[in-house]
Amino acid sequence: MISKISEINKIYNLIILGSGPAGLTAAIYSSRAKLEPLVVSGPHPGGQLMGTTAVENWPGEISIMGPDLMIKMEEHAKKFGASFLPETVTKVDFSNKIFKIFTDHNKELQAKSLIISTGAVPKKLNCSGEKEYWGKGVTTCAVCDGAFYKDLPVVIVGGGDTAVEDASFMTRFTDNITIVQNLDKLSASPIMQDRVLNNPKIKIIYNSTVSKILGDNNKVNSLEIKNLKTNNTQVINTSGLFIAIGFNPNTSIFKNKLDLDNYNYLKITNKTHTSVPGVFAAGDVFDYKYRQAITSAGSGCMAALDAEKYLSSL
Amino acid sequence: MISKISEINKIYNLIILGSGPAGLTAAIYSSRAKLEPLVVSGPHPGGQLMGTTAVENWPGEISIMGPDLMIKMEEHAKKFGASFLPETVTKVDFSNKIFKIFTDHNKELQAKSLIISTGAVPKKLNCSGEKEYWGKGVTTCAVCDGAFYKDLPVVIVGGGDTAVEDASFMTRFTDNITIVQNLDKLSASPIMQDRVLNNPKIKIIYNSTVSKILGDNNKVNSLEIKNLKTNNTQVINTSGLFIAIGFNPNTSIFKNKLDLDNYNYLKITNKTHTSVPGVFAAGDVFDYKYRQAITSAGSGCMAALDAEKYLSSL
Repeated sequence: MISKISEINKIYNLIILGSGPAGLTAAIYSSRAKLEPLVVSGPHPGGQLMGTTAVENWPGEISIMGPDLMIKMEEHAKKFGASFLPETVTKVDFSNKIFKIFTDHNKELQAKSLIISTGAVPKKLNCSGEKEYWGKGVTTCAVCDGAFYKDLPVVIVGGGDTAVEDASFMTRFTDNITIVQNLDKLSASPIMQDRVLNNPKIKIIYNSTVSKILGDNNKVNSLEIKNLKTNNTQVINTSGLFIAIGFNPNTSIFKNKLDLDNYNYLKITNKTHTSVPGVFAAGDVFDYKYRQAITSAGSGCMAALDAEKYLSSL
Repeated sequence: MISKISEINKIYNLIILGSGPAGLTAAIYSSRAKLEPLVVSGPHPGGQLMGTTAVENWPGEISIMGPDLMIKMEEHAKKFGASFLPETVTKVDFSNKIFKIFTDHNKELQAKSLIISTGAVPKKLNCSGEKEYWGKGVTTCAVCDGAFYKDLPVVIVGGGDTAVEDASFMTRFTDNITIVQNLDKLSASPIMQDRVLNNPKIKIIYNSTVSKILGDNNKVNSLEIKNLKTNNTQVINTSGLFIAIGFNPNTSIFKNKLDLDNYNYLKITNKTHTSVPGVFAAGDVFDYKYRQAITSAGSGCMAALDAEKYLSSL
């Protein structure tokens, strides 16, 4: 944590925005390389894994609680000298070689290089029970959590490629899969649609949404499904709800400062480079495809190594 | 391990070649996705980290022995049902949709998809003491091991971009760096040369090689340097020797079967795709730039997810 005024006025070699697996791995690599990075971590460090329970796909850990893994990474980064500032960046200025970063606590920070690992936020249903059962049956990652639902009924909300891929993936674990889609047809690409439309394990409820998530306080056991045309509701049993209606990358403060794609993800060249030299990116803020802790961590490592090379060239 | 003849004749969904962080992470993800992969691991599973001691840059592990980390990953993959075959692939046949793989124990295996994570082997000096002190002061990764040599004398062998980058990186830790280069000038790009030629922390010995690695049995303490023009030798004190003369990717069996680049690395598109549909790649077998356990693991995860999608599309 920044404590002294002298540290506020200093020019950092590297500031890292975000503290999920990408940001923390960047912090571990860059602190170990003596860059003395500052991690602007947001008020709740740790990223999306803080909202999970058991993680079974971090290599080497057969099962670890998501928050425990993130705490281990934070300790690791601190051990090698990374500083943490639990604030949120509200504005950036890339118009000079020394970048300026402004926080919600009115701090102005300066850095020679930057790694953006602010992640993405899953779009939510905003229905009753969603917050309560998040990580307790409600998830946004079939690849991560699918294996927990062997032979159990699951519901997938959405109708795009992600929802259809998730449904297809879940057929490896269970033959009781329901897709709930708000339109009268799927919006996934035709080739992806074919995979689920003819699959006896997958049922589709059209023109509908999940209006209530119900459970026994510990985990989801059923959902209220509402038909958007008739307003009729039905309750169906399920053990898992996979929300697959997309993500919002945390890039609003970079609009008109860095190149973004049509979905507001950062545009990247050479694995980590944004459109401004010295500003690198890592993790879900540009990766809409893999979105795994381990891929984000690998990406954070790459960004740190590339930032180190950039700093050496100054 | 394959034990029954019936398993020899089966068609695997996925065979993974190699058992470093890339291969084992691919095995964890694909076994968890119920693909029941077979890992052809080579006689000594674990990849390059098996030749290391303390690893301080695996996120979440402040310090772990390299072999211990790899054993954890292997146990993880086995827990979810990956099989291991401790043999070496000697030939591949990609001419049909079902790939054939032949091993040094005369096994013929069949698979619908393949992940190549056979890694790369660092070029060696082949001098006295090299084998004895490998991982005990002799290393090929400045980014990984540089931090262990704070304020200690180090020697870097080589004169290309990697050697010069390593020397530049090491200036963050020590001001006693010697480059030993076999030619009468560096072969790195001019911009990289500038960084070391004018750095008072870095001394260069030209027309020379390391002819003997000496130590106290536990770790390196000095080197014999031989001038290749005069054959004169000198002994210099050092705590670390970074060998930076390049890598040989393990791709010889893929020549004329998959696209390789001029340095025999696999050519990749879309992060994991080789030139044959259904054959994916992960880790150092194509990545000559980052070469970290965590980047390889991320790459292995991507290859597994892409292989799963490929299999779903069949």
